[in-house]
Amino acid sequence: MARKIILDCDPGHDDAIAMLLAYGNPDVDLVAVTTVVGNQTLEKVTRNALSVARIAGITGIPFAAGSPRPLVRTIETAPEIHGESGLDGPVLPEPTLELDRRHAVDLIIDTVMSHEPGEITIVPTAGLTNIALAVRKEPRIASRVREVVLMGGGYHEGNWSAVAEFNIIIDPEAAHIVFNESWPVTMVGLDLTHQALATPEVRRKIAAVGTKPAAFVGELLDFFGATYLESQGFEHPPVHDPCAVAYVIDPTVMTVRKAPVDIELTGGLTLGMTVTDFRAPAPPDCHTQVAVKLDHERFWDLVVDALTRIGDGAE
Amino acid sequence: MARKIILDCDPGHDDAIAMLLAYGNPDVDLVAVTTVVGNQTLEKVTRNALSVARIAGITGIPFAAGSPRPLVRTIETAPEIHGESGLDGPVLPEPTLELDRRHAVDLIIDTVMSHEPGEITIVPTAGLTNIALAVRKEPRIASRVREVVLMGGGYHEGNWSAVAEFNIIIDPEAAHIVFNESWPVTMVGLDLTHQALATPEVRRKIAAVGTKPAAFVGELLDFFGATYLESQGFEHPPVHDPCAVAYVIDPTVMTVRKAPVDIELTGGLTLGMTVTDFRAPAPPDCHTQVAVKLDHERFWDLVVDALTRIGDGAE
Amino acid sequence: MARKIILDCDPGHDDAIAMLLAYGNPDVDLVAVTTVVGNQTLEKVTRNALSVARIAGITGIPFAAGSPRPLVRTIETAPEIHGESGLDGPVLPEPTLELDRRHAVDLIIDTVMSHEPGEITIVPTAGLTNIALAVRKEPRIASRVREVVLMGGGYHEGNWSAVAEFNIIIDPEAAHIVFNESWPVTMVGLDLTHQALATPEVRRKIAAVGTKPAAFVGELLDFFGATYLESQGFEHPPVHDPCAVAYVIDPTVMTVRKAPVDIELTGGLTLGMTVTDFRAPAPPDCHTQVAVKLDHERFWDLVVDALTRIGDGAE
Amino acid sequence: MARKIILDCDPGHDDAIAMLLAYGNPDVDLVAVTTVVGNQTLEKVTRNALSVARIAGITGIPFAAGSPRPLVRTIETAPEIHGESGLDGPVLPEPTLELDRRHAVDLIIDTVMSHEPGEITIVPTAGLTNIALAVRKEPRIASRVREVVLMGGGYHEGNWSAVAEFNIIIDPEAAHIVFNESWPVTMVGLDLTHQALATPEVRRKIAAVGTKPAAFVGELLDFFGATYLESQGFEHPPVHDPCAVAYVIDPTVMTVRKAPVDIELTGGLTLGMTVTDFRAPAPPDCHTQVAVKLDHERFWDLVVDALTRIGDGAE
Repeated sequence: MARKIILDCDPGHDDAIAMLLAYGNPDVDLVAVTTVVGNQTLEKVTRNALSVARIAGITGIPFAAGSPRPLVRTIETAPEIHGESGLDGPVLPEPTLELDRRHAVDLIIDTVMSHEPGEITIVPTAGLTNIALAVRKEPRIASRVREVVLMGGGYHEGNWSAVAEFNIIIDPEAAHIVFNESWPVTMVGLDLTHQALATPEVRRKIAAVGTKPAAFVGELLDFFGATYLESQGFEHPPVHDPCAVAYVIDPTVMTVRKAPVDIELTGGLTLGMTVTDFRAPAPPDCHTQVAVKLDHERFWDLVVDALTRIGDGAE
Repeated sequence: MARKIILDCDPGHDDAIAMLLAYGNPDVDLVAVTTVVGNQTLEKVTRNALSVARIAGITGIPFAAGSPRPLVRTIETAPEIHGESGLDGPVLPEPTLELDRRHAVDLIIDTVMSHEPGEITIVPTAGLTNIALAVRKEPRIASRVREVVLMGGGYHEGNWSAVAEFNIIIDPEAAHIVFNESWPVTMVGLDLTHQALATPEVRRKIAAVGTKPAAFVGELLDFFGATYLESQGFEHPPVHDPCAVAYVIDPTVMTVRKAPVDIELTGGLTLGMTVTDFRAPAPPDCHTQVAVKLDHERFWDLVVDALTRIGDGAE
Repeated sequence: MARKIILDCDPGHDDAIAMLLAYGNPDVDLVAVTTVVGNQTLEKVTRNALSVARIAGITGIPFAAGSPRPLVRTIETAPEIHGESGLDGPVLPEPTLELDRRHAVDLIIDTVMSHEPGEITIVPTAGLTNIALAVRKEPRIASRVREVVLMGGGYHEGNWSAVAEFNIIIDPEAAHIVFNESWPVTMVGLDLTHQALATPEVRRKIAAVGTKPAAFVGELLDFFGATYLESQGFEHPPVHDPCAVAYVIDPTVMTVRKAPVDIELTGGLTLGMTVTDFRAPAPPDCHTQVAVKLDHERFWDLVVDALTRIGDGAE
Repeated sequence: MARKIILDCDPGHDDAIAMLLAYGNPDVDLVAVTTVVGNQTLEKVTRNALSVARIAGITGIPFAAGSPRPLVRTIETAPEIHGESGLDGPVLPEPTLELDRRHAVDLIIDTVMSHEPGEITIVPTAGLTNIALAVRKEPRIASRVREVVLMGGGYHEGNWSAVAEFNIIIDPEAAHIVFNESWPVTMVGLDLTHQALATPEVRRKIAAVGTKPAAFVGELLDFFGATYLESQGFEHPPVHDPCAVAYVIDPTVMTVRKAPVDIELTGGLTLGMTVTDFRAPAPPDCHTQVAVKLDHERFWDLVVDALTRIGDGAE
C-alpha cells in the first residue's frame, strides 16, 4: 500500500523536484502539501508550490500556507541559491489551485488525527517551524505519526556554517522540538544529499523524458547548478530534498545508521548543528537515525520514473 | 468603558486572586480565560481555573486549555510554592463549567481577531507558551492586541535563579517571542510584585468581606504565606499575579518606566533573565516598560473591592 | 599599621586618581604598581602610570607591565572615555621611573610570596587579566593574599552593556577566575561608583589644594567629565577607581553586603555580568561582598587629603 | 638536523610512549618536558613523567611542572582510562631526576626565547593550559615557535562528548587561545589517532625488542587496552600521543589537510569541539591543519625503532 505523506516544504528548486517525485511515484500517496518560510518568504514559496502543482497537474490535494517566520530567530532566506523568487530559472505558470483555508499547522494536525495511527508520514524539506508548532499545539500527533523523514542537518557536513545546515540553522529551536519528540526521525542530511548530484548523465536522462515537467526540472537544474557552483563550488548540484521522499518510497535506496541526534542551541560556532553521537552503538530506545550512503543510480531512476509517470501533467 | 482582557494563567494561588480581581472589578471585562502548564501541570491548573470559576460564580466566559509543556525546555512546576494540586490549601469544589473545545491558542486568536483592533488586552500570569504560539500561528494579533500586561520577570530581582523569575525561566523562548513582538508590553515583574505583600492588615480586610470567595482567598493566603516563608523566607507572601490585572484596571496604581527589555536565552547563570537597559532614556520606539513602584494600599483596596462585588458568587 | 597594597591598573583618568590616593594616604602602603591592557593599550597605560608617578613624585616602588591582551577575547579599549592616550586632557611629563624588568604577573607573585600571609591586598582597577594569570601561575597566592578589593562589575548597573561593566566584560574569563578563587573579594562596582560623582563642590575642593598634582587631577576631571557627559549622559563624572582604594583605607566609607557573585561567560545579552544572588542571606562560607552605599563626603575628603599630603610631588 | 621539541604532557599511558618515541628517535631532540594536569592530577602526572625518564634513562633535560588546574573550568581527570596513578599497570620506579625549579610556563618561555626563531617546536599531548599561559605571559613566543603539533580534538570524532575530545574539553579556553594564536598548528586529533591502534601484531613487535623499556610499554598497553575496551569499546587501544611526535619526526607518516579550526566555548552539546571548516579550500593565511590518514605500519615502526635505540635505558 502506498505510504501517505505530508510534504512540508519551501520551494525551492529541490523542493519542487521532491514534490514531483512524491506525486509521480506510485508507492507514496501525497495527501497534503504545506509551506513554510525558508528558501524564500512564505508568500513566495507558497506561490511556487502552487505553480509546481499546476505544472505537474496536481489537483485534489490540500495545499496550506504555514509560518511566515521561525519560532525565535529572525528570518533568513537563501536567494544566493534559489534566486529572488525562490524558484528562479523557469518561467512559472500562474497557480490555478486555491490554498486550503486552514493554517498549515492545523492541516497537519487534522490530517494526522483523521487518519489511523501509523498511517501518516511527515516529510519536511524545509525549516521545521510548522512541524514544531503542530506538535506543540497537538501533542498527540507525536505518537500518531508513522515517522518523520526530513531533509536537513548533517552529522559531518555543514553548508550555512562549518557544521550546520540551512534548514536546521534557520530555526534551531523548531529543530530541537522535532528531534526531541518521541516519533521516529530519519535525518536525510548533507552527508547523504551531497551524494545526490545532478550529473550530466542524470540531466540527460531527465531531458530524455521529453515532457514539460521534465523540461521544467531541467531548467531548475540549470539555475540550481549555476548557483551551487558559484556559491559553494559544487561541480554538479546536490539535489537534497527528493532524497527524503526517496527514502519513504524505498528505504533501501540509502543506508541509514541509528544514532542519537540533538540540536545545538547555544554554540557560538555550532548553532543549529545536528550533534550526532556515534561513539557507541545506539541505545535500544534510540528514535533517530541518519542517512549515510546513497545508491545514486537507483535514486535518480526514481526521479526519472516519476517524471515519466507524470507525463505532461493534467493540462 | 471596561477594558476587555484575556487572562492566560496557571492557577496557582495568585492566579486565582488575579481571576477574582478581573472578574469582580467593573473596569475590566474578562472575555476569556486560558490555561497553560506552569505552577502545576496543564491538567491541574485547568481544573483549578474551573474550580475558581465556580467559587466566583463565573459563567458565560470561555475557558480553554492550552499548552501542556514549554516550547523547547522540559516541564518545570512549582509544587514547593503551590502544592501538589497547584492550589493547595482550600477544599476545591468540582468544576461545573465546561471547557471550550478550542485550544487556548485558537481561542486567543479568535477572540483577538473577532474584536476591533486595540480592543483586547492580553494578561498573562504564567509562562508565555500560549501567547507565543498564538502570535506565531497568527502574526496579525501582534498589531491587533491593545497591549500585553504580564506578570513575570524582574529587572533587578530573581526568584528561580539569582536573576530570573519563574514565569520567564520555565519557557524563555516563549518569553523571547512575546517581548520581541511589536505589541506594547508592560512587565509587572518581581521588582513590583515583591511589594504586593499580603500583610496581616491586608488579610484582615479580606476576611472582613465575609463571603465564601473571600474566605477562599484567606485560605489561599494561609497556604501561600506558609510556603513563601518556608521556601523563600518572606515574612508576608508577595501576591504577584493580580498586580498585572490591577495595572489594566488603573495604571496609576503603580509607576512604570519605559526601557528596552530582552530575554537571555543562552546564559549559563542568567537563562531567562529579563535584561532591561536603563543606561539611557528609552528610545522613542521602545515598546516595553517595566513596573517599578506599587501603591500598596490602593492595590489591595482593588482586591477587597472586587471580592465585595463578587459577593458569595453565583451559587 | 598601613595596609600594603598592589595596585593593578590601566590609567585611565580614575586610575590615576586611585594611584594618587593610594600614594598620598598614610593608611595604605603602595608596594607595587602593575599595568594591564584596558582603557588603552598596555604600552599607553604603562607610560601613563609612569607619568603619574612622576607627577606625584613616586619613587622606590616597582612598576611592572603585564598583559597586553585579555585571556580569550580580543582587545577592547575605551577611547571614548579616556581619549587616544588613555589619559587625555593634561600634558603628561616624560616618565623618569624605569619599569621593573619582571612581568607584572611575576611581580605580583613575588610580592605576595615574599610577604607574610595576609599582608598584601590586591587592588585591581582594570581588567583582571594580570590577577588571573598570577593566581593560575602561582595558586598559593590565593590563600596568602589578604583580600582582593576591585573596581569592576555591578550588581544592578552596567555601562558597557545593559548589565555588564567595562573592566569585567573586556576579560570575563579572567574575572571568572578571580571571583571563583578562595580569597575574599570585595566588588566595588558601578552601583557604588556611580555615587562617587565629581560634583562642582568636589572639584572646587580639589582645586583649592593648589598644588601641581591637584591641578593635574582638575585637568583629568575636566576631560573625564566631558566624555562622561557626551558618551553616557552623566552630569558629573563618576570617579570609579579610587573608591576601591578608599575601601582599603577605611571600610566604613561605604556599606557592603555579603552575597555570592559569579561571572556570566556565555550569555548573549549578559556576557561579563557579575551575577549577584541576593535571594537569601549569604551562606557562611561566602567569600564575596559587594559595595552598596558610599559616604560621598568622606570619600572625597580622603582624596583631597591625599592630594594635600602629596604636595607638589618630589620635584 | 634534529627538530628540537618541548613535550608538554600529562603521562598518561600514551604520553609515556610519546616521551619514549621523542627521546629514542634521532630526528627529534627533546629539549624540555613539561607537565600539566590532565589524565591525572599535576602531582601524579609529574611523578609519572619522572618515572618514565628513569625507565628510559633520560638525563640532562629539564622537566618542569606546570598548571595544577585548567584556566577557567574545574579539574576533570581520566582515571577510567589511566587508572588512579595516571599510569596504572606497570610498577613505576622512584624518580631520580629532580624537577627544574622553574614553572613549566617559564621553562617553555625561556626555552623558546633562548633559541633562534623557528628552532623550537611545541608538542602538547595534554590539555593546553601551560601553552596558553606561556603565550599570554610572553606573546613573542607565538612568532618564535616553529610550530605547535598537538594531540587533541577531532574534526569528526569525539570521545569525552559526542563531538569533543578530552585534551580540549578539559580546558577549552586554553585551546581557544592556542588555536587562535598566529603560530602554525597541526591538530593530530581523534580522526587520526583512532587509526593508531596497538594491534596484536604491533604488540608482538614491541615485545620482541626485548628490553625493559619495551616491556614497560607492553605493560602500559595491557592496561590501556583493557580500559579502552571497557570504557569505549575499542578492540585495540588507540595510542594517541606518539602520533603527534611522529608527525614532527616525519610529516609523511600521515596526510594532513589545511582547514580553519576554532574552539567552541559556549555550546551546550558542543563545548570544546574543534570546529573545522572544510566547506571550501583553506584560505591562503590559514595557519591550522588537521591530520587525516595515518600510515599505520610506518608509525609503529618508528615506535619500535625508538625503543630499540633506547635499549635498556641508562641504568
